[in-house]
Parts: sequence; C-alpha cells; structure tokens
Amino acid sequence: MTYPLGSNRYGKIGVHLATVARDADRHTFTDIEVEVLLQGDFAPAHVDGVNADVLPTDTMRGTCTALARDGVDPVADYARRVAERLLEASPAARSVALEVVTTPWERLEVDGVGHDHAFRPAAGGQQVLWFSLERDGEGPVVEGGVRGLKVLKSTGSAFSGYPTDRYTTLPETRDRIMASTVEARWGTRDAAVDHAALAHAVPATFCARFATHDESESLQHTLHAMGSAVLEAHPEVTWIHFRMPNEHHNTADLAPYGLDNPNVVFVVAGPPSGLIEGTVHRPGVEVPARW
Amino acid sequence: MTYPLGSNRYGKIGVHLATVARDADRHTFTDIEVEVLLQGDFAPAHVDGVNADVLPTDTMRGTCTALARDGVDPVADYARRVAERLLEASPAARSVALEVVTTPWERLEVDGVGHDHAFRPAAGGQQVLWFSLERDGEGPVVEGGVRGLKVLKSTGSAFSGYPTDRYTTLPETRDRIMASTVEARWGTRDAAVDHAALAHAVPATFCARFATHDESESLQHTLHAMGSAVLEAHPEVTWIHFRMPNEHHNTADLAPYGLDNPNVVFVVAGPPSGLIEGTVHRPGVEVPARW
Amino acid sequence: MTYPLGSNRYGKIGVHLATVARDADRHTFTDIEVEVLLQGDFAPAHVDGVNADVLPTDTMRGTCTALARDGVDPVADYARRVAERLLEASPAARSVALEVVTTPWERLEVDGVGHDHAFRPAAGGQQVLWFSLERDGEGPVVEGGVRGLKVLKSTGSAFSGYPTDRYTTLPETRDRIMASTVEARWGTRDAAVDHAALAHAVPATFCARFATHDESESLQHTLHAMGSAVLEAHPEVTWIHFRMPNEHHNTADLAPYGLDNPNVVFVVAGPPSGLIEGTVHRPGVEVPARW
Amino acid sequence: MTYPLGSNRYGKIGVHLATVARDADRHTFTDIEVEVLLQGDFAPAHVDGVNADVLPTDTMRGTCTALARDGVDPVADYARRVAERLLEASPAARSVALEVVTTPWERLEVDGVGHDHAFRPAAGGQQVLWFSLERDGEGPVVEGGVRGLKVLKSTGSAFSGYPTDRYTTLPETRDRIMASTVEARWGTRDAAVDHAALAHAVPATFCARFATHDESESLQHTLHAMGSAVLEAHPEVTWIHFRMPNEHHNTADLAPYGLDNPNVVFVVAGPPSGLIEGTVHRPGVEVPARW
Repeated sequence: MTYPLGSNRYGKIGVHLATVARDADRHTFTDIEVEVLLQGDFAPAHVDGVNADVLPTDTMRGTCTALARDGVDPVADYARRVAERLLEASPAARSVALEVVTTPWERLEVDGVGHDHAFRPAAGGQQVLWFSLERDGEGPVVEGGVRGLKVLKSTGSAFSGYPTDRYTTLPETRDRIMASTVEARWGTRDAAVDHAALAHAVPATFCARFATHDESESLQHTLHAMGSAVLEAHPEVTWIHFRMPNEHHNTADLAPYGLDNPNVVFVVAGPPSGLIEGTVHRPGVEVPARW
Repeated sequence: MTYPLGSNRYGKIGVHLATVARDADRHTFTDIEVEVLLQGDFAPAHVDGVNADVLPTDTMRGTCTALARDGVDPVADYARRVAERLLEASPAARSVALEVVTTPWERLEVDGVGHDHAFRPAAGGQQVLWFSLERDGEGPVVEGGVRGLKVLKSTGSAFSGYPTDRYTTLPETRDRIMASTVEARWGTRDAAVDHAALAHAVPATFCARFATHDESESLQHTLHAMGSAVLEAHPEVTWIHFRMPNEHHNTADLAPYGLDNPNVVFVVAGPPSGLIEGTVHRPGVEVPARW
Repeated sequence: MTYPLGSNRYGKIGVHLATVARDADRHTFTDIEVEVLLQGDFAPAHVDGVNADVLPTDTMRGTCTALARDGVDPVADYARRVAERLLEASPAARSVALEVVTTPWERLEVDGVGHDHAFRPAAGGQQVLWFSLERDGEGPVVEGGVRGLKVLKSTGSAFSGYPTDRYTTLPETRDRIMASTVEARWGTRDAAVDHAALAHAVPATFCARFATHDESESLQHTLHAMGSAVLEAHPEVTWIHFRMPNEHHNTADLAPYGLDNPNVVFVVAGPPSGLIEGTVHRPGVEVPARW
Repeated sequence: MTYPLGSNRYGKIGVHLATVARDADRHTFTDIEVEVLLQGDFAPAHVDGVNADVLPTDTMRGTCTALARDGVDPVADYARRVAERLLEASPAARSVALEVVTTPWERLEVDGVGHDHAFRPAAGGQQVLWFSLERDGEGPVVEGGVRGLKVLKSTGSAFSGYPTDRYTTLPETRDRIMASTVEARWGTRDAAVDHAALAHAVPATFCARFATHDESESLQHTLHAMGSAVLEAHPEVTWIHFRMPNEHHNTADLAPYGLDNPNVVFVVAGPPSGLIEGTVHRPGVEVPARW
C-alpha cells in the first residue's frame, strides 16, 4: 500500500559565505553560515518520484550566494530577500525558514590600532538569526540568538538547600565556580526592530548580569536574573530562552595529598553536565513552545 | 518587576555508563549514554533562589548509576526504573524524559570466532531510546531510533526533471552516488513492544530498502520507500521519521586534464549538504509534530 | 636583515576522493583521503616572494584527482604514481611524502547477502599508508598503519605492583576493563610487499592478541604482546609502533548507595587518559626514530 | 621469541585544571591542560609485565593537581616543579616532557569595566609551553607556542607566476583573501627568559606583520615575513616554526547568475586546504629537526 507522508521539510545546510565591503580602504568582513528549509506540498516527490515541484537544494545554495552580491548586512534584510526569492522560485512551498549564523571577526591590532583589512574571530560566540516566512502569513517571524558564548564566574555562586535522598552524594556549597556555554534565543515585539543592534546588546546585557548576580543560589536562579535583565533593558524584547549547560569545575580533593584547597585548584570536568533550560517573558506575551 | 518563567526543564546530560554481564564466561558488554530532563513547577528556584524542590542533577547522575546495578538490558526497562524513581524523588516534577543512546559493540574475532570478553564498536550507528513519563499521564511514551547510520549507493539513484530558474547550475543526472548519515525515530502501537528487537530490525529493513530502491528519483523518493518498507515489515511501528542529509559525492570534472569520467572518480564534498526530513505513517495515526 | 629559512615543507591536505569500480554489476567502492607534502629548495618563495618553483597546492589536488582515473587500488601503486608525477612536476622538490587514509566500507546486507552497490562504513578504524620518495634516493619508503581502532576487554587485565608515593590514590586491581583507541604504524622488509593485504591482516593479528592476552599486567604489557604477535605472524613486518591511550572505564563506586559492585557497572571516563606508546621490532632492525 | 622494545614513552594526557588566585577581590583565573610523558627504561613492564618501575599515570595526574596548589603562574615554573617531581618519583625515567596548553580568559565587561570575578575565553587562540627535562642533561628545554590562532586578510595577498602543467586549473590572482589558523612554536636563547611575556608578545608581533605584509606573493612569503618580524622584535627568540594551513576563501563564481563579483562575495571552502610549514631562524642557530 502507499503510506501517507507526514510532516516534512527539505533544504540546504552549511552554506558558508563571506563578504568584503570594499567601498573604502577600511574593509568590513562578514562571515555567515546559512541554512534554509522549505515546507509545503512535496508529497509527489516522496511518494511518486516526481520532481516537477522540487527546487533543487543546489539552487537554494546558488540563490543564497547570488543574493549576497547585494550585501548580507544587515543579516535580517539579506534573509528576507532570500526567503522571498525562494517562495517565488518554489510555488509548492508554503513556508521557508532560514537560520543565519554570523561569526563576528574583529580587527587585528597593529601598534594599538585596528587594522583596515586584517581580522581575527572575536571572543563571545556566534550570532544567530532565525527568519521564517509563510506564503499566506502575516509577515515574517524574526528571532535573534547567540551560540557558543562561554562564561564563568569564580565566586558569587552557591548551591545548597536542595532535597536529599539515598542517591545524593553532592555536598552543599556556598561558594563554587559557575560556568556555562550559553545558547540564547529571543523574540521581539515586531519584525522591524534593529536585530543587528540587539545581537550585540542582548548578550552584553545578560553577560553583565551573569557577572553581577553574586547572590546566585543556582544556575536556574542566575538564568532568570539574566533573562529579567534583558527584558528590563530592551523594551523590544518580549521573551528570551536560555539553554545553559552547567559545566562543572569541581574543587580538587587535595586531602589525600595532605593539602587544603580553599577554592584555589579546580578540576575542569567534562561530561556529564547539568543542563538548565528556561524562558523568561513579559506578562501576557505568547511564547513559542520549546518542546 | 518580576518577569514570569515560561517553559523550562532541567536535568543531566552525558551520563556515560557501561555494564558487563558476567554471569557466564561469555560476557555481554553494554555501553549507554543517558540524558534525563525534568519538567514541573520549578519557578521558586528560578525566581526566588529557593532550592527546596530542586533535585540536584548530580543526584540524577547517581540514580542512573545506581539503578544500572540491576542491569540496563533491555534499555526500555532500565529507562522505566530511572524515570519512575526520579518522579518519586522529585515531587515538583510533572514529567521526566530520558534519552538513552546505546553504542553497540561486537566481539573481536579470534580464529574466526567471536571472543568471550573482547569487543570493538560495531558498524551501523548508535541506537536511541526515548522514554518519557508523566506523573498523571496514561503511561510512558517510548520511541526508538538510530543515529549516525552512514549509507551510500554507487548507482541506482537519479535526480532530474526539477524546475530551473536563473540560479540553477546543477546538471540533471540519471546516475549518481547517493549517500547520507541517517537519523531515524519511530513510534509504536504501544509501549510494550520489544524495543530492543526493533532497534536492530528497523534499521536492517530500511537499509535493505535503501539498497534495493534502484528506481530512486531523489533522496525524498528513497526516504519514502524506506519508511514504507518499515511499516510494511513491522506491524507494531506506526510512524517513522527520517533526517537524511544529502552528502554529496560529485563526479570529478576531469575534462580540464583531458580525461573522461564515466562515474568512476568522485570528489567527496563537505558542507553544504542537502537536508531532507520526512515522516511516513500509517493512515489515521497521530504523529508527534516535528517542528 | 634577511633571516634564513630552516626546515620547511608544503602541500595539500584533505583531498577526499572516492572511486567506483564498475566493471561488473558488483561494484567496488573505495574512499581515500590524501595528504601530499613536498620538501626541497623553496627559499626563493619564502624569502623573495618568487613563485617560479612553487607548484600550486591546487595542482597537487588536481594531480591526485586526475591520477585516480586509473584507479586507486592498490593504494600503494596509486601513491607511487602520484609521488613520481609530483617530483616530475616540481623540479625544486627533493622529496615527496604522501599519507593516504582509507575508510573501509562494507556491503549492506539484503536478505543476508551483501548488496552489489550499497555500502556502509565498516567497523575497525581506518587504514593508513605512508609513501615517501626522494628524487635521488634508493626507492620509496612505504609504511602501513591503522587509526581509530577502538578495542575493549571486560576482563583479563590487571594493574598492580606499581610504586606508590604521596601522590598515589589509585587502588591496585587484578581485574579491570582495558580499552583503547589504537593507532599503529609498521615497517616492512621491502616496499614490494602486499600492503593492502597487510592492512587487513596486521590489525586482525594484534586485535586477536589483545583479546587473548588475559595475563595482562598493564597496557604496556599488552602492547608488547600485540607487537610480538604481529612480528611472529607476518615475516615481512620488521617493526610496529603503537599509540594506545588508556581509556579509563572506572568501576562505579556504589557504596554510597548501599550497593556492591562486583565489576558490573562502570563509569566511562573522558579525559584525562593514560597514553602508552611503544615500538616492538625484530632484533637488528633499524627503526625510524619516533620523537 | 622475545622481541625487543624500541622507542617508547608513556604518561597522562588531558589533565584539565583551573586555578583561581583569590588573594584580592580581583580574581585571576587560569585554565591549563597538561600532558606529561616519561621516557626511560620501561622494558620490564612491556616485556615481562613487571610494574615495579611504572609510576601510574594516575599518580602523574595527582602530581599535576597537587602541585597546582602552589600556583600555576608562571606556567614555566609550574612545569619545572612537576617535571622535577616526576623524575624524583620515577627513578626509571631518564626524561620527562610536559606540554601545557593555556586557554586565556578575559574579564566580562560590566558598564565598560572588566569585572573582578567573571570571565569569558579571549580571542586569539591558546598558548602552549613545552618543557622537557633530562635527568642527566644540562637543563630544561623550554619552547613557547600558540595554537588555533585564526587570521584573515581581505586584500594585500597575491598568488601568480607559478609553474603550470597539464593538471593546473587555478587562475592567477593579484588580489585574494588569505586566511589561516596559525600554529607556531619558538625557541629562545636560554630557558630563563620570560616565557609568559613572550606568549603574548610573539603572536602580537607576527599577527601585526601578517596584517601589514601587503606585498604578499604567497602564504610562504608571508610566513617568512612573520618569522622575520619576530626575530627582529624579540632578541631572545632564536627560531620560530609556523604551521599554516591555507584556508581557502574562493571568489564566488556569479557569472552563471549574470552577476559580476569584484572580490565581494566569497565561498568559505572546507578541505582540502593548502598547508605551509616553515622555520625562520637566526644565522648559526641550531634548530630542532621538525620531521
């Protein structure tokens, strides 16, 4: 028998492009990695092997590349042009979703001054922009985010007062290292906000709060403080979701060697990690379901 | 102001355990990596820094480890015991979700015979079991899957008849290499089926169909054939979802060197890749939304 | 001033090719990744920016690709043709060194029979061939090897009788899991041996010895037994070098949970690992220095 | 028969530690990963399974951890203490070699000011220190280096005037992007220099030269300029070796889409990469052989 096709999508992942704005001697270098996925009525391709409606993923790659000729800054504008073109090129598609990951590069320093055309990747992780557009929808949904933003504080973090049972071995602590590689994703009031500005400002805000939240009782507690700081500082942001692994730095047990360890030497542990995920939002705002 | 906490969860990831069944001289070696996540009412921890309801993720790790003492085979039974214990240990949790990734090991051969207690990882990817349990729900939801299952066919794959536009450069072909690293996930009629048996049988079925589907017009076409073969062969499976990147092996252009290339030499391309995702299901079956 | 150029080399890395032998319905699929490096008099390029003697690395890539048209099996023959061509194409080169990494693929099974043209990567790691040729030398040096060959034994391994000091915490054991991801490299009596046959046979030999060496007192002890078995079984092999990380599987401490653990549950530890490297050779044979 | 043991070494890899200097409110956070390898007379362990002279690698880990109690800054001093202790603890060892990889962290900014105890990894790669000590040698050999230092220039790089043959397809260019992930390693006049200062200063020097070397005819040419700049600026450095993959950013071919591309859009290529390695040294200085 012929079994029905359920939810499906297809597209291209890993389209890695760079652009150089050369209008002046002082170049701007931009490094993006694009993923594009279409949804629509693609049952004929799956069920019958008919490709008449299947825009090749290679054409998606070509489209991303060609449209970069008019610039990829700001990324939200570039994403819109790609999305609109793909809906045009693929009548069978009902919607298109882009993810654009920007790796920020900073200028190499020569005699204390940033160079005109030499660069290195900046600290602080990658910026992400999600842009989705429905053919018959009201307008695009644009969300911003960050990935790979590693942070650590060497004090101002506690974990105690938790329930214990027969499988508990963790000792309580009022002073520990807290570290995470933050992934964040946020929504805004409307799609017209300055997403490029927020891509810098939102992480700056929550990193500062991470630093100053010295009354932290848990990673959960700090996550909520970070989210609240973002909503406080950025009126256009309506919700923010964090995925924060708890990357354990365990106080080394030096007692077997006859040594004390007043939180001076730590073992940087690999997996397993804790994992905390949570969304902080303005009252009354509808937040996309996460899982 | 105090901003509300939206959807959230927390737990432990990367709990990597192995067990040895030593009842007989012929050992069984099992290698699992467990992820466990709780959902429930954890707002006090986030908003107020009160940990009274926060079962430490270290206790989750300890629970996974201790319960392995009674064996981890079959994995679905082990997952059930861990899930039930965690709901017991964390009254604030409404639900618990486990992901258990099994790396299959096979026996090393000595004089053509599998050895009693020496092993190497087997070919064919990792097995995944998802087990989720709600405190007030009807019963667990158990799904099976596979990850990292790389397959390739050197002929019997075409791609032509697709729409073209100004961004098309891909030539049509009636004979190409098709390759993918398959991720699959499937649901079953009820939780009581033999998940361990399916973990072997379902990939065997869809790999065989991948091999024999020589009339393939696209990766989509083969995906549907693979899913259909699974539903045909395994009555207890009600739907199957595939995530299949199209890992391009491009026919090398040898013309600049004055050579022909009748599909003999291929350049194994890295990113970008195509990506095809799709679900095949029995009629009338409710399939979990994918995105 | 002009500073002298010391030791230097250049070339291309990561040339990933596949070939399909299609002479019969039953295809042969070969997957190789090539690295090629030239040494010679390239000071003019470095010091003066003169490229007259610099064969572009893109030409090396093209050469590897074009010469694959005549087949890449056996790999040692293919490597020889590439090496000879590159010395011809680059008069400034005194020597050329190739590394060819083969990923073995095996046939997908359909109804218990290996399929004619569908494949998956085989278990057991990758094969490596090193081929180096000097313009004025006596002949090529060809060495074989393996990479990523993970092995584990669940008993038959001890570690005790070692010296202790104030930094010792490890308990002695007469029964533990021993696991490693083996890298091996071996030399042969002359370049004319059947390197392709050895690439299969040598790992089979040392894996079998790994399995049966149940009197193991240490990873060092087993390494030497593995090397000895290879020299015993393969007269053409004159030395073999192993790099074997000791990938710890620690017996889980279940005492805090009130449970015993008679070597049944293990924590698969990540880094740090032990690392053992050693060469076993025939008496009187000159072995290349390793470091 | 008993086959002889050739060159061998053993030790511990991946000992990942962090220290917090808490003497003042303004903390210093240091993150190191240590590898330690012993060479000596370990044939009894290999050949006879006698462990009387085998200092366990777990004890090496413990030693690295315990000695961190007295601080790991400067790294060269810490390495010396570990090395001396290990020679003491292992009479069978003739020499010990340490590699210490430091990941630099920088302060998180709060209101434009670096925070006292919150950090993120800095841009610019990791610092490496190699420290080796022979029991009967003259003194330690200490070398510095850097790893993972990614750099790119958007103009000021050419590649032309190279020889062509039948396998040439690369077009000449007088303006291209040049990018690499630099690994460097350098030697100094004596072991007593300020290695911590050089770890910052040497990369700063060669990165600046990378930026300003706008007459670059090749990666080789720039490598030599970078090395020369280091020798010019740092009298204590006697040689420097670079490993620089040529990470291709290809000018996108937009002609099929009817567009020009005056070096504005680039495809960030993955493998294959070029690879250039070279040493620049002071006249008359003996440089360690590289391969």
